[in-house]
Amino acid sequence: MGGQSIITDAKHEGVSPVERLHALVAADMAATDRLIHTRMTSGVALIPDLARHLIDSGGKRLRPLLTLAAAKAGSYAGDHHVKLAAAVEFIHTATLLHDDVVDESALRRGKVSANLMWGNKPSVLVGDFLFSRAFQLMVETDNLAVLDILAGASAVIAEGEVMQLKSSNDLGVTEEHYLNVVSAKTAALFSAAAESGALLSGRGERYVSGMRAYGDNLGIAFQLVDDALDYSGRQALMGKTVGDDFREAKMTLPIILAHARARPEDKPFWKRVIETGNQTESDLDRAITLVEQTGSIQETMHRARAYADAAKAALTVLPSSDIKAALADIADFCVERAY
Amino acid sequence: MGGQSIITDAKHEGVSPVERLHALVAADMAATDRLIHTRMTSGVALIPDLARHLIDSGGKRLRPLLTLAAAKAGSYAGDHHVKLAAAVEFIHTATLLHDDVVDESALRRGKVSANLMWGNKPSVLVGDFLFSRAFQLMVETDNLAVLDILAGASAVIAEGEVMQLKSSNDLGVTEEHYLNVVSAKTAALFSAAAESGALLSGRGERYVSGMRAYGDNLGIAFQLVDDALDYSGRQALMGKTVGDDFREAKMTLPIILAHARARPEDKPFWKRVIETGNQTESDLDRAITLVEQTGSIQETMHRARAYADAAKAALTVLPSSDIKAALADIADFCVERAY
Repeated sequence: MGGQSIITDAKHEGVSPVERLHALVAADMAATDRLIHTRMTSGVALIPDLARHLIDSGGKRLRPLLTLAAAKAGSYAGDHHVKLAAAVEFIHTATLLHDDVVDESALRRGKVSANLMWGNKPSVLVGDFLFSRAFQLMVETDNLAVLDILAGASAVIAEGEVMQLKSSNDLGVTEEHYLNVVSAKTAALFSAAAESGALLSGRGERYVSGMRAYGDNLGIAFQLVDDALDYSGRQALMGKTVGDDFREAKMTLPIILAHARARPEDKPFWKRVIETGNQTESDLDRAITLVEQTGSIQETMHRARAYADAAKAALTVLPSSDIKAALADIADFCVERAY
Repeated sequence: MGGQSIITDAKHEGVSPVERLHALVAADMAATDRLIHTRMTSGVALIPDLARHLIDSGGKRLRPLLTLAAAKAGSYAGDHHVKLAAAVEFIHTATLLHDDVVDESALRRGKVSANLMWGNKPSVLVGDFLFSRAFQLMVETDNLAVLDILAGASAVIAEGEVMQLKSSNDLGVTEEHYLNVVSAKTAALFSAAAESGALLSGRGERYVSGMRAYGDNLGIAFQLVDDALDYSGRQALMGKTVGDDFREAKMTLPIILAHARARPEDKPFWKRVIETGNQTESDLDRAITLVEQTGSIQETMHRARAYADAAKAALTVLPSSDIKAALADIADFCVERAY
């Protein structure tokens, strides 16, 4: 689900729009960070130790940032948005921890995530702990509608992850199915983060649904770009990790398109590396070449741009403000970071 | 966490008190079952398939039974207790699914749970889905206090499971630590199930805290008996599974006591089978013999009896009723099932 690379980019001098938005809600974000660290404590030391590993790993709190921004841009004057933002980050962290769980089949192939230094079971249980803490924080906001949105999003995220699991190694996966997975596993939390913050502000349904649509479209754009970057030769040259999805034989859009557009002589390659998962060391280079040759990265980015534009269009419900401008620029930046 | 063996026992002719309580809330329990099956559906077929495996496995819904009974004995007239009972069962099922997750270390020892036919990751994700569904159901009860109780219990359960994980293979575990684990991983949900049902009835703090204490003490008694039965030679003779805890080198009370009371010549045995986890096939028989010879089963059951008595004593806040009588008998039955 990524989230790191959106913040800074050598090509964009100075301050990124994400940093600008951070600055606009700086006091609230500082309060959110303090709350996160207070509430992840436990008498059972392993829990904060493991949680800290993810929570302090340099992720840029993009989801809680949306919550704070949506509340603030709606002129919310209370302090429940801080609890809500911490809850959103806890849900995100819990999904990351659970995403790290390794299957027996993966283990048999000798593939153990670096994050798994504590083992599967502690990751699951600490995720459960953070998930529970998220709901405790939400209860403190005294707002059942907000609870409903985030409980619903959590169910949808789990559905999306299961859908993705089932679609690995399957060249028959359609673009539509892929977009359903992305909507569920990534966009649902972006959307709920923005919507629930907006709801707190009490500005009414038009504002709430606008922020929901912004989060939803931004989340999809964000994931499309992430999936494109995983096959980016340029990213590889810059020393960033590529090929994670490839090694897991995940059916992301670049692969769906590259396979659909493949020359007959390249079809057996895709069949071998994706369907049988039988990969050798040079296969990633060939995959990147084929994905680029077929224009699949470009097409994926083209789609991402359309979702980013839809995110910006959804912001028309907001009165003009620095926060609105930063949110719009984040949508652009989300796509531009790839070039 | 068990739950099956409490229901019927050849020695107890006729109807067990659990069955009696089921009959007393039969319509509500039928509605709860329908709701469970409605809400575990998903467009992602693997989710209900996997969930059904546990939900329809013959577990007797003891926890939701406590919720329904606590609401009913408090003369609750609404229908939110059914949603709450379904939520409690979903939380229980989610913890079972997450408890099934196997660690790499366990896999390396070739120990894969039979429940793991779908793999680690689907178990985790379907657990997350059910957990989210539980919170959606609770939101529908329109009662933030109930949400707070169950979110808090969920956090405590996760803490208890982590504590237990850390205490495996450690002969230094104290009785006090063991009881903390049991309170957290098992009693917290019994307690929250009863308390939240009581809360719905609106009968006030004395009733609510009485039901909470009943659930808490029953949960501890229940787990103590379960832990004793895992070393029961009689249970082994009846063809039931024994030795699960032993094989996982869990530090349950029978082992804590047997090790504390061990003759000097038996200490190296415990050191080998628990601390190094290096077990051979005949070790379980020897462990059972040593646990019985040292009176550790009897002592464990003696403690369980004390908690069952405390559970019964907590029921004084209830007006006399068939439900109250059945709850009291369940506390007795929980202990008597072992003889």
